[in-house]
Amino acid sequence: MPVCWLTPDFQPVDEAPSGLQFGDGLFETLLYEDGRLRLWPLHWSRLLRGMATLGLSPPPSENALLAHLGQKLRDTRVAIIKLMVVRHSGQRGYACGTDWRLSIQVHPHRPDPPRDVSVCTLDQTLSGHGLGGIKHMNRLEQILAARELAGRAWEGWLRTPQGEVVEGIRTNLLLIDREGRWFLPDCSRWGVNGTMRALVSDCLSGRNQSVYNSPVPADVLAGTCSAAVMNSIYGVLPVTELDGSPLQTELLASLITEINARIQKVSITLKLKP
Amino acid sequence: MPVCWLTPDFQPVDEAPSGLQFGDGLFETLLYEDGRLRLWPLHWSRLLRGMATLGLSPPPSENALLAHLGQKLRDTRVAIIKLMVVRHSGQRGYACGTDWRLSIQVHPHRPDPPRDVSVCTLDQTLSGHGLGGIKHMNRLEQILAARELAGRAWEGWLRTPQGEVVEGIRTNLLLIDREGRWFLPDCSRWGVNGTMRALVSDCLSGRNQSVYNSPVPADVLAGTCSAAVMNSIYGVLPVTELDGSPLQTELLASLITEINARIQKVSITLKLKP
Repeated sequence: MPVCWLTPDFQPVDEAPSGLQFGDGLFETLLYEDGRLRLWPLHWSRLLRGMATLGLSPPPSENALLAHLGQKLRDTRVAIIKLMVVRHSGQRGYACGTDWRLSIQVHPHRPDPPRDVSVCTLDQTLSGHGLGGIKHMNRLEQILAARELAGRAWEGWLRTPQGEVVEGIRTNLLLIDREGRWFLPDCSRWGVNGTMRALVSDCLSGRNQSVYNSPVPADVLAGTCSAAVMNSIYGVLPVTELDGSPLQTELLASLITEINARIQKVSITLKLKP
Repeated sequence: MPVCWLTPDFQPVDEAPSGLQFGDGLFETLLYEDGRLRLWPLHWSRLLRGMATLGLSPPPSENALLAHLGQKLRDTRVAIIKLMVVRHSGQRGYACGTDWRLSIQVHPHRPDPPRDVSVCTLDQTLSGHGLGGIKHMNRLEQILAARELAGRAWEGWLRTPQGEVVEGIRTNLLLIDREGRWFLPDCSRWGVNGTMRALVSDCLSGRNQSVYNSPVPADVLAGTCSAAVMNSIYGVLPVTELDGSPLQTELLASLITEINARIQKVSITLKLKP
């Protein structure tokens, strides 16, 4: 679909932002359903962190953005919303001003969750170049990983250069090994710190569940007993098969029930303007 | 300036390619002057290599592209041309089809070379994620480096995570240390294998000059005696100052003379269509 660009004050502009030439921007993908923007506070705070990291001037107003969204969504029941913030200098070359443009894409449907969640581990590595955690637009690693995945499974897990597993192409991961250890890899250096991951992390803290936050070493991965993948659209999904071997899903059932209940509390109601 | 998008057969299309959301593309920046496209064979072969690496279908015809350029440039004496090739799947998410769109930007002027070329070394590191050498559009490292450089010098040199110097933000580098050793860092793992770098490498081979192709370790950098930076627009420029200390430029004078003579031989004459 064609992408429209707006100034920070929501005025449409003809020219696409120059930062598109270098992936010099950020995005957030979030679910809107029955008047509520899911996990909005977590998306908004990650976007602010990312803009500070890239040296973009902060957005003028959260309320103005929500009001603008309320106008766009007034005839919609469910949608996946993609927000993009891209640097705009108007110049050729690696210019680095603080100005930016905004795009708001509304996809008025929600994909069905998969019946079975198969995962395979990929050879694709992640680089940790000081941009870990934020959801920037330099995503060639994910594109190459998607090529490697191509039909092998529903999701693929990416590694550090040392071979430890960090995250999926479009999900974060939770893993339980045969010794009963839980792993929820931290993505502040490698990968993307997902909003659903933050909710799961908070939930596990409340249960006093001790969790390893490091990437998953190869020997731990070999002893995987249960696993889940998670993102802002699908929530938490139990993994049914990892690298061709079936996994148990019962261990995660009560956690998933709790997360589904908490998701509503970490969402906001959007005022739908006529 | 607004960017127009074309199919591989040069038909204009309204929709910008979806790969722009992820920096999923390649670019070449080259000089056109007095009917000649400088270093064209080197740009073309790097673009083909990059397209193969990203899994994009090969361009239908080099001659058709040159004919199209010949039409666009028929009233122009000098220009910087930016070619972009960006994946287009038309879908949301990390889709990885082989289709692509093309943009040809013509900037009808050539920047004056700087009178003095000051360089400083930067803290910004480069990641080596299997995409080394090609000129892809995931350039946040260069953007962050440009922010770090901001007015300190004309160019900044970037490092590996181990602290060795590889290249500049927009140039490759050549360095001679006090022991008379020459360094022309290879950029097939880190950074961009520049077209002018390829010409310099070939020229040094012809002179039987032994050259280290590895990144420059910190102790070698500290003993720098002479250095040059190079790219497709400026050619080879002697560095006059490195991290605040003056460098000798005489050692490079004959090499620069030779390169300037050879540039013309590695250029092609464009047929300008009426």
